[in-house]
Amino acid sequence: MTAASGPVLHTDLADVSMLLGTWEGTGRGEYPTIEAFEYTESITFSHVGKPFLAYQQRTRATDDGRPLHAESGYWRFPERGLTELVLAHPTGVTEILEGFAAPNMPGSDTFMIDLRSTSVSGSSSAKEATQTERTFEVTGDTMRYTMRMAAVGLPIQHHLSAVLHRVG
Amino acid sequence: MTAASGPVLHTDLADVSMLLGTWEGTGRGEYPTIEAFEYTESITFSHVGKPFLAYQQRTRATDDGRPLHAESGYWRFPERGLTELVLAHPTGVTEILEGFAAPNMPGSDTFMIDLRSTSVSGSSSAKEATQTERTFEVTGDTMRYTMRMAAVGLPIQHHLSAVLHRVG
Repeated sequence: MTAASGPVLHTDLADVSMLLGTWEGTGRGEYPTIEAFEYTESITFSHVGKPFLAYQQRTRATDDGRPLHAESGYWRFPERGLTELVLAHPTGVTEILEGFAAPNMPGSDTFMIDLRSTSVSGSSSAKEATQTERTFEVTGDTMRYTMRMAAVGLPIQHHLSAVLHRVG
Repeated sequence: MTAASGPVLHTDLADVSMLLGTWEGTGRGEYPTIEAFEYTESITFSHVGKPFLAYQQRTRATDDGRPLHAESGYWRFPERGLTELVLAHPTGVTEILEGFAAPNMPGSDTFMIDLRSTSVSGSSSAKEATQTERTFEVTGDTMRYTMRMAAVGLPIQHHLSAVLHRVG
């Protein structure tokens, strides 16, 4: 359910209502151990009237459309300006990220979110539980994000960047 | 995407294809510290052609339809007979459950899944990270489950039971 239908938005979500909806776009990934790649992405933020957002994300390879990453979970806003992202990954990994969500500057029309992993766990068969740092910038119907990742023993460094547009 | 459309099911999921689709039904919850309650539930298992199932779950109170619990994540089947459920909860908690998924008996038409928490983590604002044990029985288009929970300092004990039917 989007802002345009369904239950009334919880008042605690007023500051972050610009996230609601479905976003689509393209991104580029790189890491020292792999070849750079391009992807298409779909992200949906929805709500049920309670003070959290449900979150679904999927990417596909630009070249042949094969599914790449997916993740799902919930965004929480325990205090004004603070945010928590609680995630499950199909790789067998759970991840909790914490950080801030606030206008870039007083009067700015860009909303910034900055998060980093505070807890990462893996199932018995999970290959690796990676740490991430994520920055989102939302201006109107455009969302840009970057993700840094620490994996395969390397220090945290740039991995993904993407630009998405609200499509619904 | 269900078994009836979309990508070809990954061969590793052949044994668990009976989970695919949307299930709806009703359940009853109880715990020593709360009043017993009844709920309606919707669960969806879907796939994208990779060797995991995406999972979405929601419950609502039977009396007034208000949203109660929700969870989302992924089911993994690392070896035949084994399963892992990787979950995010809007309460700020991530949970990994591990166990088995197999026919009840050779020749039986009931498929059993038995899982228990092996890892539970909470965000800074999460109130409590509870341990659960879950048993599912799927026979044709009927799914029954029970959940036991350890919460508020009490030993693990019965919390939920529900019966759902495949609706799509």
